[in-house]
Amino acid sequence: MELLKQKIMTDGEVYEGNILKVDCFLNHQIDVPFLREIGKEVHRLFSDCEVNKILTIESSGIAIGSMVAQEFGCPLVFAKKNKTKNIAGDVYSTPVESFTHGTTYNVMISKRFLGKGDKVLIVDDFLAVGNALKGLITMVNESGAELVGCSAVIEKGYQHGGDKLREQGIRVESLAIIESMDHITGEIVFRN
Amino acid sequence: MELLKQKIMTDGEVYEGNILKVDCFLNHQIDVPFLREIGKEVHRLFSDCEVNKILTIESSGIAIGSMVAQEFGCPLVFAKKNKTKNIAGDVYSTPVESFTHGTTYNVMISKRFLGKGDKVLIVDDFLAVGNALKGLITMVNESGAELVGCSAVIEKGYQHGGDKLREQGIRVESLAIIESMDHITGEIVFRN
Repeated sequence: MELLKQKIMTDGEVYEGNILKVDCFLNHQIDVPFLREIGKEVHRLFSDCEVNKILTIESSGIAIGSMVAQEFGCPLVFAKKNKTKNIAGDVYSTPVESFTHGTTYNVMISKRFLGKGDKVLIVDDFLAVGNALKGLITMVNESGAELVGCSAVIEKGYQHGGDKLREQGIRVESLAIIESMDHITGEIVFRN
Repeated sequence: MELLKQKIMTDGEVYEGNILKVDCFLNHQIDVPFLREIGKEVHRLFSDCEVNKILTIESSGIAIGSMVAQEFGCPLVFAKKNKTKNIAGDVYSTPVESFTHGTTYNVMISKRFLGKGDKVLIVDDFLAVGNALKGLITMVNESGAELVGCSAVIEKGYQHGGDKLREQGIRVESLAIIESMDHITGEIVFRN
């Protein structure tokens, strides 16, 4: 998505250790009018798949998930990272290792909101090593729902999470795939 | 908002201890087309206030925040509950006691995204004792931004957080205010 690549080059900041900061428009301050365009593009890519549920993970997947669900006119479910008082009853649950935080946490979804008959599109802001997506896919499979595919706003191609999922036959559509970044020059190279 | 009251009565579940579960449409599974109507109503209430920034707190404020920001055509900023690698530099920070979880956590906002010239509307899914809103208001005041008001989807009137803020002269518009609930009969009484 050309508009997104331009936005990343204009507003993104590259730091040592292959860190791309896009918190001015994607995951702290959110450029909602821009994110709406992202939602429309994801809808265009999966428009023929009869998607009836969008699935994401808290927190930074929720805004993009809302925009995508709006285009499909369907509900969004977000997986929770901690059990709260307000999730009662049976849940799907799986451990997810956070690459960013260096910890493992349990992710859960109430069984009431995912199951047979659901055609699920998973969305998230970032796809790097792919642990969050793998956890969500595990729960979709356990639930008996059908996985239509996955879509990330930004994929870090050099961390290979997306390619590993594609090798397993899962449709993964990222709107921008970064092949390499240089924190000294600030250069960002996208996959064609 | 009549549509919301009906939704709460149809889909909400009342449990012992004054717990209202609306996780089927508001804070786990999200009825995005419905939430869009909520966003339009919040926009209608504050349409003459020149709002140029929506502020909320992760996680369950993000979806409603996105819908409200969409109507105003402005950015959404969500306060983070934990410091991550991806927030660099100076932040506003304040402790918030969680009534639901019985813990205190630090909430923070990057100084780059809140400051003089911002006319801020704070939104959240629930308003009970009001600790989250109070924390957000503290940071808005510290930043030099102007607070236009606060809007919660559901206010638990019997926990008085909203009324205490109103007594301080803060404009608080909740779309449904619950005066009492009965977990045996399931009855929910709204404030007129």
